[in-house]
Amino acid sequence: MPRFEPFEGVLPPVLTPFDEDLKPDRAAFVAHCRWLLDEGADGLAVFGTTSEANSLSGAERMKLLDALVEDGIDAAALMPGTGCCALPDTVRLTRHALDAGCGGVLMLPPFYYKGVSDDGIYASISEAIERVGDSRLQVYLYHIPPMAGVGFSLDAVDRLIDAYPKTVVGLKDSSGDWSNTRASIEAFPDFATFSGSEVFLLDNLRAGGAGCITATGNVNLAAIREVYSRWRAPEADSLQAAITALREVVQARPMIPALKAILAAHRGAPGWARVRPPLAALDPAAAAALTGALRARDFALAA
Amino acid sequence: MPRFEPFEGVLPPVLTPFDEDLKPDRAAFVAHCRWLLDEGADGLAVFGTTSEANSLSGAERMKLLDALVEDGIDAAALMPGTGCCALPDTVRLTRHALDAGCGGVLMLPPFYYKGVSDDGIYASISEAIERVGDSRLQVYLYHIPPMAGVGFSLDAVDRLIDAYPKTVVGLKDSSGDWSNTRASIEAFPDFATFSGSEVFLLDNLRAGGAGCITATGNVNLAAIREVYSRWRAPEADSLQAAITALREVVQARPMIPALKAILAAHRGAPGWARVRPPLAALDPAAAAALTGALRARDFALAA
Repeated sequence: MPRFEPFEGVLPPVLTPFDEDLKPDRAAFVAHCRWLLDEGADGLAVFGTTSEANSLSGAERMKLLDALVEDGIDAAALMPGTGCCALPDTVRLTRHALDAGCGGVLMLPPFYYKGVSDDGIYASISEAIERVGDSRLQVYLYHIPPMAGVGFSLDAVDRLIDAYPKTVVGLKDSSGDWSNTRASIEAFPDFATFSGSEVFLLDNLRAGGAGCITATGNVNLAAIREVYSRWRAPEADSLQAAITALREVVQARPMIPALKAILAAHRGAPGWARVRPPLAALDPAAAAALTGALRARDFALAA
Repeated sequence: MPRFEPFEGVLPPVLTPFDEDLKPDRAAFVAHCRWLLDEGADGLAVFGTTSEANSLSGAERMKLLDALVEDGIDAAALMPGTGCCALPDTVRLTRHALDAGCGGVLMLPPFYYKGVSDDGIYASISEAIERVGDSRLQVYLYHIPPMAGVGFSLDAVDRLIDAYPKTVVGLKDSSGDWSNTRASIEAFPDFATFSGSEVFLLDNLRAGGAGCITATGNVNLAAIREVYSRWRAPEADSLQAAITALREVVQARPMIPALKAILAAHRGAPGWARVRPPLAALDPAAAAALTGALRARDFALAA
């Protein structure tokens, strides 16, 4: 498991299950994390966008992280999301992750204010790093403008790497713009640039990137992991085509409810379908259409 | 002071001062709130966008609210922002506001996820209201798509009023789209529709709206309040033109840093210029240009 070495490979941003009162379901969460590691996850990006992390309180996130460690999951394999709108919240979650022994953190920039300057984005991360003040800290920048409305320009990334070369070690690019990912890989060769979708996994690896952190990893991890482990093999393109095709089926629906619907259907665990507002669960017809479309592709969730 | 009656008039979303360590400056905050009330504020929308509320932790917001009440400010005059991305945070801040005796709360929808459905927005507010479970609660919906990236459609507002007629009592429209504000005023006559800028104050009042909740109220409150109290008088249009002209000078800069720069300059209190990242303070030249432009308009901050 990586600790001071940067993460690489395929990391799922772990879905967060909820109980009937919409409280996090600790047992189902720990079990899902264990299953993902058994399936070959190179780490777990808990508390990302797919995890509905921003729909969880800080206390809820810390409690779930503690649950994983208490249950014996190696904290070095964990890359929790810790970037919040408010600096004190980011500092608190990041310190907690470090104290738990996490291998790194995935840091969103503050995402309420739009149209902010690169100086403001730089200062947000810089202040967080300075206030955490811990040489163990390994930050992966989380670039997801379609959700956050703001992001990390290559120039801001460059300044952060320059100021904190041993701390700012990677980036997840969920811009959906391959040219931006490629530019990051090329500009920062000793930096772990992850794609935010497995659609770009083979391109990412061929360009020298670190892999992908992808929502669909929650349901299709083994196949995605195959592309990672066999990317130099002759069959790499056909393996890539298969995971891309599956992704396209899922992302034709609202992604997070769709992934939860898949787990609910394939595990016979209807509770997995629950989401917190502002997300809404797929209605039964949409869920049935999704599982039908997947069945037509011979998709099966590993036991 | 309104309590069970809806707010109306001119409410500033109060700027939050920070000390050298970027912690909220309690004394300066309380003093600024007192000054705004002395200037004629019809209430204080503490912890709004202008307040950098989303750059504050929940604990910081609650502590500042407690400070106002401890200092003797009538809680019925307060309309704190309590809408967060995470339902438990929204419920916690809303309960705290009610326990403090606040006259209402200004509720953002969860603002991380984009492209969410009206059902999801409705459920976010509905769940918060149900979980707070307090008949004293008076919710003002906060519609600010330019920042939040999501907002309240008229249909969602209609459904919320219909389900919670005694609780969902108003809306602040910071869309910048007067036609949306007018549509809300016309569709919901017994509902307090505020404009999010004094630029629309006279239009708002003539259409039957409740007034405005406006950032510039932090520095130009008395003049804005004049439009409110004399909106039926012959001089109303010229009073409106003057406050609009001043607004245009300020909003040609990044709004929140500009307002803080004005307080810093006119009070001789440089600490007022501090902002939390991702915002960045105006540089000295920009601040000087701003105060110069205001001086050219004979602007003076009331003592």
